[in-house]
Amino acid sequence: MSLTARIGMLNDVLCAQSVLSWDSRTMMPSGGADSRARQMATLIGLAREILVAPETATALAADDIAGLNPDHPHRRAHETTRAAHDFHRRIPGDLLARRAAARGVANGAWIKARETSDFALFAPHLHTSFALAREFADAAGWQAHPYDALLALYEPGETVASLTALFARLKSGIAPILAAARQRSIRTDFLTRPYPEAGQQRIARHFAELLGYDFNRGRLDVTVHPFEVSFTRNDVRITTRYRPDALAPALFGAMHETGHGLYEQNVDPAHTGTALATDLIGLYAVGGASFGAHESQSRLWENHVGRSLPFWQKHFPTVQAEFPDALSDVTATQFHAAVNAANPGLIRTEADELTYDLHIILRTELEAALIAGDMRTDDIPAAWAKAMHDQLGVAVPNDRLGCLQDIHWSSGMVGSFCSYTIGNVMAAQLMQAAKRIPEIADGLQTAHYTPLADWLRQNIWTHGRRFTRDELLLRATGSPLTPEPYLAYLREKFA
Amino acid sequence: MSLTARIGMLNDVLCAQSVLSWDSRTMMPSGGADSRARQMATLIGLAREILVAPETATALAADDIAGLNPDHPHRRAHETTRAAHDFHRRIPGDLLARRAAARGVANGAWIKARETSDFALFAPHLHTSFALAREFADAAGWQAHPYDALLALYEPGETVASLTALFARLKSGIAPILAAARQRSIRTDFLTRPYPEAGQQRIARHFAELLGYDFNRGRLDVTVHPFEVSFTRNDVRITTRYRPDALAPALFGAMHETGHGLYEQNVDPAHTGTALATDLIGLYAVGGASFGAHESQSRLWENHVGRSLPFWQKHFPTVQAEFPDALSDVTATQFHAAVNAANPGLIRTEADELTYDLHIILRTELEAALIAGDMRTDDIPAAWAKAMHDQLGVAVPNDRLGCLQDIHWSSGMVGSFCSYTIGNVMAAQLMQAAKRIPEIADGLQTAHYTPLADWLRQNIWTHGRRFTRDELLLRATGSPLTPEPYLAYLREKFA
Repeated sequence: MSLTARIGMLNDVLCAQSVLSWDSRTMMPSGGADSRARQMATLIGLAREILVAPETATALAADDIAGLNPDHPHRRAHETTRAAHDFHRRIPGDLLARRAAARGVANGAWIKARETSDFALFAPHLHTSFALAREFADAAGWQAHPYDALLALYEPGETVASLTALFARLKSGIAPILAAARQRSIRTDFLTRPYPEAGQQRIARHFAELLGYDFNRGRLDVTVHPFEVSFTRNDVRITTRYRPDALAPALFGAMHETGHGLYEQNVDPAHTGTALATDLIGLYAVGGASFGAHESQSRLWENHVGRSLPFWQKHFPTVQAEFPDALSDVTATQFHAAVNAANPGLIRTEADELTYDLHIILRTELEAALIAGDMRTDDIPAAWAKAMHDQLGVAVPNDRLGCLQDIHWSSGMVGSFCSYTIGNVMAAQLMQAAKRIPEIADGLQTAHYTPLADWLRQNIWTHGRRFTRDELLLRATGSPLTPEPYLAYLREKFA
Repeated sequence: MSLTARIGMLNDVLCAQSVLSWDSRTMMPSGGADSRARQMATLIGLAREILVAPETATALAADDIAGLNPDHPHRRAHETTRAAHDFHRRIPGDLLARRAAARGVANGAWIKARETSDFALFAPHLHTSFALAREFADAAGWQAHPYDALLALYEPGETVASLTALFARLKSGIAPILAAARQRSIRTDFLTRPYPEAGQQRIARHFAELLGYDFNRGRLDVTVHPFEVSFTRNDVRITTRYRPDALAPALFGAMHETGHGLYEQNVDPAHTGTALATDLIGLYAVGGASFGAHESQSRLWENHVGRSLPFWQKHFPTVQAEFPDALSDVTATQFHAAVNAANPGLIRTEADELTYDLHIILRTELEAALIAGDMRTDDIPAAWAKAMHDQLGVAVPNDRLGCLQDIHWSSGMVGSFCSYTIGNVMAAQLMQAAKRIPEIADGLQTAHYTPLADWLRQNIWTHGRRFTRDELLLRATGSPLTPEPYLAYLREKFA
């Protein structure tokens, strides 16, 4: 079997795994949970077996890339596959099994600890979770810092050193903007009023279509924690949730996932089923270059488009007509201001655009210290409270609203948080470059997004995983990741 | 890896395949069709690889069953696995690939041929389809008749010889009942009136629950061709369809699939993931003993329960209240009579209970003759018309309403039709035995079905694939499959 056929088979298995995952989060009856977990573990195990099997080494050896340019798609696919094959062969199977077992136990303990806001219940499991993550990092290999090995799973190229510099600039840049934003008082009362679900569904679907999401190759469903997932570019599904008393979560959630969906739906069809549409390190069928690159597209469409004044000048009447009771006393300008209000709070997932990154930086810094052994698990609550006070100016009343709020640590997902902030930074950098093109800038002023979408398709989406995140940024903006456009954007919006 | 672990992994893959299949028929956007077909083919290929791999032979050799009784579950699982391993090793991989390729082409040709009612368009593909089925039969091995090898895929134990005897008795038994039924005139006008879909959904769900279907381990969704599918007993999904102008298809369709669902939801939990909940010949995750045994449960609940007078005496008021416009001038007795009216027609899927088997017998006899080479593909239309005239007394106006109506032949599913009739026969045989128990008989008279369900759970459902269909019948009724109870039932209902 050729290398391409072999990776195609692997991609099929990972797409199947994603169908099972989507189903478990949108459709599955509660009774199916245990069987489903087992089925998903089996598929991931088979995918890994296909990748590490001697047959893959044979296929790699038989796959001649000598004559291909360094950035030829097939050469990139070959090199990615080679690296992933070597990577997974370095990770002992028993470590994966121990992590999977620990994850199950830790998740149960986390749910209990969060309910009772009792960190002590979770602490030993958190300790194990980080000890196993460290063991994983050591098996994967690292040079300057063990956390670098975990960052590489989600955001290849980032290191503790690079993130330290990025975060320092963001902290110093955001602080004065936040101080200025605190002085403003913005009316937001109408955001929490009764909004019938049927109307929210219609608007969410309407906006997804408006931004270019193709429903012939997708669906919009309801879930608890919204996500996007693709089973090749031809079947890319998004989800949102509907709160009966609030409009913004469903609306901006749908636009966020639409951004993810646009990325996947627009990957070059030639990449379908190849290593350029498969994360062979994470064993996940995905076309985006990195988690951060993916997040850049969701944040771009959610924030730069969906929270812009021209968008609401054009589309507020549609929303107002759908919810006449809730929005009769509101103007487009007021609505736009309300959905852009800064309001430092305790919960990451409810954070506004300006303070969101401070939540991320806090978590990432803790993770790096824990992995390095520079901090003990028991010290987390105090460190959390101090950072929340120093950076956001809020007091943490209990661990439930503090260090027990996220599922990531109980799931063993150490190293992923930074992707959210990288997405924000990358989105602003791309928008700054895109706006230099008059047609795109004009479109943004009049809420016509085809020029922007065409530019993103050509510069980002179509490439799938052919280029790294920084290669994409260099090609599209002339620079690797840089926080200045993002800080300028935040300054203009909030200061 | 132990034999049990290995088959557990195989079952996981087949359950995943079933999730993908369910999704493709209920949820998938149209654009996903090609990718999905590929993903499903990959999973089936992996399942087959797991089964035929030398590791399975090694696990079989290491699995000691010497001390186990002949009908010990593990011994049965072992023997089933051994037989399936040997069976699949006899089938050449290239034959499977050629059948899969031919299926794709044949299906497209069938759709076109049916649209234009032009059998000549489909004939060459049908010829290929049967030639490949014959090649498959020869590879699988047979003794008396090549069609026996195909029957064994769906209804192990049945042969051309056994079916010939069964069908002869059914034909001679049904003919006089049909002649008598033709004399009766039954009012059915109210069955085709406007029935709003929301009401049909409520009633379908209500009846499924009433018959014992567990929605914590299941779902009821909408599809074009209703089906039931299980991903272990803990997640068993049923489907139906809603016609705005007719109530019966959704109602009896839902009860039919509920019968299938009850079987799967009630397989012994100890069989989950074993060869006793997996069709290792057909590579399909299913707990039923055979296709016919499965059909016996759907037909039993649809017809013996769902079309019984006590059922409608009790539940007609609920349906009438849901559809006051359509049913205000109808009584429970009239409704019961209407849903039991015999009306010979051209289309199998729309056939009444009395004439359904005649459609099946016709198809099965043609299949056997084609596989044996006793008939040429081109002779099908004439043979079809003659049988429809002789057996049902209807004239076939064109091939669209004749031999082009079913998808089975273009899908290469040769050998499966007989299962429908075996299901009917088996259902009546089981009901005759069950009714000998006073508690069950009383329950049927008062529309209380718990005693019947308990008896079926204990005698049929819980065993999964541990016993063959005839072993189940012998244990539950004292006799292998026999048509007399079925003919007695039809006589009582229709003559």
